[in-house]
Amino acid sequence: MKIAIAQLNPIIGDLSGNAQKILETAQQAASAGVRLLLTPELSLCGYPPRDLLLNPSFVKAMQITLKKLAQDLPPNLAVLVGTVVRNAEAHIAGGKTLFNSIAWLEAGKIKQYFHKRLLPTYDVFDEKRYFEPGLQANYFTLDDINIGVTICEDLWNDEEFWGKRSYAVNPIADLSILGVDLIVNLSASPYTVGKQKLREAMLKHSAVNFQQPVIYTNQVGGNDDLIFDGRSFGLNRQGEIICRAKGFDADLLVVEFDETQRDLKLDSVSPIYESEDEEIWHALVLGVGDYIRKCRFSQVILGLSGGVDSALVAAIATAALGKENVFGILMPSPYSSQHSISDALALADNLGIKTQILPIGKLMQGFDNSLAELFAGTEFGIAEENIQSRIRGNLLMAIANKFGHLLLSTGNKSEMAVGYCTLYGDMNGGLAVIADVPKTRVYSLCNWLNFHHKKEIIPQNILTKAPSAELKPGQVDQDSLPAYEILDDILQRLIHEHQSAEQIVAAGHDQVIVNRVLQMVARAEFKRRQAPPGLKITDRAFGTGWRMPIASKINWLALN
Amino acid sequence: MKIAIAQLNPIIGDLSGNAQKILETAQQAASAGVRLLLTPELSLCGYPPRDLLLNPSFVKAMQITLKKLAQDLPPNLAVLVGTVVRNAEAHIAGGKTLFNSIAWLEAGKIKQYFHKRLLPTYDVFDEKRYFEPGLQANYFTLDDINIGVTICEDLWNDEEFWGKRSYAVNPIADLSILGVDLIVNLSASPYTVGKQKLREAMLKHSAVNFQQPVIYTNQVGGNDDLIFDGRSFGLNRQGEIICRAKGFDADLLVVEFDETQRDLKLDSVSPIYESEDEEIWHALVLGVGDYIRKCRFSQVILGLSGGVDSALVAAIATAALGKENVFGILMPSPYSSQHSISDALALADNLGIKTQILPIGKLMQGFDNSLAELFAGTEFGIAEENIQSRIRGNLLMAIANKFGHLLLSTGNKSEMAVGYCTLYGDMNGGLAVIADVPKTRVYSLCNWLNFHHKKEIIPQNILTKAPSAELKPGQVDQDSLPAYEILDDILQRLIHEHQSAEQIVAAGHDQVIVNRVLQMVARAEFKRRQAPPGLKITDRAFGTGWRMPIASKINWLALN
Repeated sequence: MKIAIAQLNPIIGDLSGNAQKILETAQQAASAGVRLLLTPELSLCGYPPRDLLLNPSFVKAMQITLKKLAQDLPPNLAVLVGTVVRNAEAHIAGGKTLFNSIAWLEAGKIKQYFHKRLLPTYDVFDEKRYFEPGLQANYFTLDDINIGVTICEDLWNDEEFWGKRSYAVNPIADLSILGVDLIVNLSASPYTVGKQKLREAMLKHSAVNFQQPVIYTNQVGGNDDLIFDGRSFGLNRQGEIICRAKGFDADLLVVEFDETQRDLKLDSVSPIYESEDEEIWHALVLGVGDYIRKCRFSQVILGLSGGVDSALVAAIATAALGKENVFGILMPSPYSSQHSISDALALADNLGIKTQILPIGKLMQGFDNSLAELFAGTEFGIAEENIQSRIRGNLLMAIANKFGHLLLSTGNKSEMAVGYCTLYGDMNGGLAVIADVPKTRVYSLCNWLNFHHKKEIIPQNILTKAPSAELKPGQVDQDSLPAYEILDDILQRLIHEHQSAEQIVAAGHDQVIVNRVLQMVARAEFKRRQAPPGLKITDRAFGTGWRMPIASKINWLALN
Repeated sequence: MKIAIAQLNPIIGDLSGNAQKILETAQQAASAGVRLLLTPELSLCGYPPRDLLLNPSFVKAMQITLKKLAQDLPPNLAVLVGTVVRNAEAHIAGGKTLFNSIAWLEAGKIKQYFHKRLLPTYDVFDEKRYFEPGLQANYFTLDDINIGVTICEDLWNDEEFWGKRSYAVNPIADLSILGVDLIVNLSASPYTVGKQKLREAMLKHSAVNFQQPVIYTNQVGGNDDLIFDGRSFGLNRQGEIICRAKGFDADLLVVEFDETQRDLKLDSVSPIYESEDEEIWHALVLGVGDYIRKCRFSQVILGLSGGVDSALVAAIATAALGKENVFGILMPSPYSSQHSISDALALADNLGIKTQILPIGKLMQGFDNSLAELFAGTEFGIAEENIQSRIRGNLLMAIANKFGHLLLSTGNKSEMAVGYCTLYGDMNGGLAVIADVPKTRVYSLCNWLNFHHKKEIIPQNILTKAPSAELKPGQVDQDSLPAYEILDDILQRLIHEHQSAEQIVAAGHDQVIVNRVLQMVARAEFKRRQAPPGLKITDRAFGTGWRMPIASKINWLALN
């Protein structure tokens, strides 16, 4: 039996457009002799639909679209489509009003629904906000083959693999007892660094452990902060990878289930990226491109400071949208170094993007004049530094508004963590491209880029000079911050490993520095709350998965 | 038996400070002969602690603080304290690692824990992100009185009252079967308009239905977007209100449980506000005051445009912080009317706050000059309007940064809904005071204020002139928006009642207007995402309880 994996890139909420994509893919699959087509979790509305699900008319439209899709599909092709289903018992039995489900469409009809059993409610996931868990093991029989149906998280509770149990039930164990021939998993699993290796190791463990071939179908594409990497794959009964779809791109793979061997046959296996930098690069390019396209923009602008952050963002945007769609604005002040201009222009030249220079000295003077009376007798400080950044933010937004471009913001994760950035200034933008990329990773991505292209994309001087915001004479980042290698290690321990100050100091960091960093992170919460969506590439990004109080008082130093 | 309700105002995360408050209240209660002291849900860390709970050292510190508090409490006083407890079975049985619990402290010890059974996961609530539900009915015996312990949501599943079931179990029914004498409910229930009436009606229904006296203890105080209104109360077996604590202020009430009658005795009952405007006013004053104080600021600034929104916010801030702590900045442009200055000055005079006038004409000219080449041949439009707003935003932030003030933003809910506001301009601020107040309600609050004070606080001309952003000559809001009565009704139906375009038109609205409003709301999502926290006063505010995708494509008109 031929089975096809449709690794689709839906637009959130675009029911007719997504249904059309499923239909076209189904027609393609049918002409290739496919019997069963798999689509990702919630493929009809795209994942995550979030609070659109609270709108009854949206849910109703989804049901109507699904029914019509079933009628339009080619005959003799079974299609599994991700959709939501009303929980008819909710008002009587208690519980959420929807299920996160898979519909089996065939012969013009919706033949059966299968409900997701394990509902992730952590990090960026809010599934218990909307859904009631399904209570039974899901499978159906197609041409004498019993196919177990699982949805994303349903396969993430292999307690032997994790060394702990996250949910009371384990759907694959239940299906294995029922004696299914094949398990399909329809997912919308967002990218994080190294996650594909984890997915494959985990499902390999389950495949071998339960002696079950598995087909894992993932969504692809960027949806706001989340980047779905695709890389759908199959595993045979021995846990060998028999196919792997493209990373960071839509794909359609056809695999063969051998009805005699009761196993999947080996097929083409796309390689996974060897280097984390290469993987992150492709993730960010997809994330930017999809955000811009799905917001119905085509061109972006950004400020080019001559620094490494804006250089990397410009390179990503150019790869995502084409050089003719990226516009770099240079806004030197009297505090800007000469190399800030020459480096930015060299970068723009390497990328082939157009630029404009708008000096801000006169505007700074204008603000100084306006505030002279009020600020009389005070020293130059943060207020004056921020004014410069906000003048630039205003110019960038004016150009974006005038020409219908989207402004990209260029702050990295290290500075978002400690608040080394200006709210309403350099934080301005529709998308924060590298907000989840620590400064040390920004450098390694730039170095990888130059190495990969075997030529200088990011000018060498940008990579070697001391980083500086250039908001006062002679300023460098390390006047205010520890060395980035130290800062990033402290942040990794704090944000990702949930370590206390005591533990971080025990790992070899200076107590005074650790205390200062922890306080800076807490104090910058109000800035992060107003930041644009940032593309998530780690297991703990600021944004939808980081929910912190602002008006609070935590004595971090007393915690151990 | 004397029972005290400690209606406390904790600071999120301030374990030692909150424990100290509980201790002081306990000493006060003990000297009044109280036997049992009730504190709100999660009184040790404040509600909601949000992702602080993901930090193991924070949870550990809470346990240490609780143990020490137990030792410090007066003898012969039982105290119920809200805390989190580790779920020791989580790794083996599956499930979340924490319980949302109440600790019974007495005689120097933690005598027992009771776990919350119903975990709200909707609107602003994310409890299933952190907590595992408790499985058993909670009660304890104190001096021969059996006391059932419930936590907030535990009492919000009276299916007869609601006409539906929200959860499978009903804790009060279980406790009633066990035959307890009294039910206590320890809550952190945020304010929304009219919610107190709902709480009292619901608990009255339960008290009568299950023949149980109930003591409801609520948190008070503002925590970021959420305002907790207090108004703790008791109900006797007949469902009569026997006491009610203050609204929007900390309080300590002592009530008597009659051991012979097995019922609560009538005590002092604070009135609830007759007018919604009065109630909302007090909510916003508390929300602003607590946000400023808990963020460790004492002074605020805001732009005074001469319009009704900034007038209301100035009045609220003055009530919350005192006139000497509010600083109004007037920033007229060449498009500003004369009355914009005179009205703002009259308001400031009425409030007694200080002001500064900073004309922005020259700064506008500076931006025009900088952008002249780039904008050559284009028409004056949104870009130029936004430049003005962002110049003002820059000036306000500069003053705030220079003098350590917090900037208040003044946008109302109607304009936040349709995006009639400038990101990085008038949206700037640490707190959006009236972001959940529709424009029509802004007027009614101002009118109430003048009526209540029996004099003009908000100058009459501000209330009668046509609202205008004054960003181009002769502009009024109704050039771009429907009349606010119409707009607010459409928004109420869309946001609160989840109505479709078809339903809103069926209610008598013009189809073209409805379609335009729905599209404006969807398109403004990117602005709302970067808005400051806004004080929540309705059942659906933008912010933490509104989780919408940005890059999406919803055909609202196809939904019916």
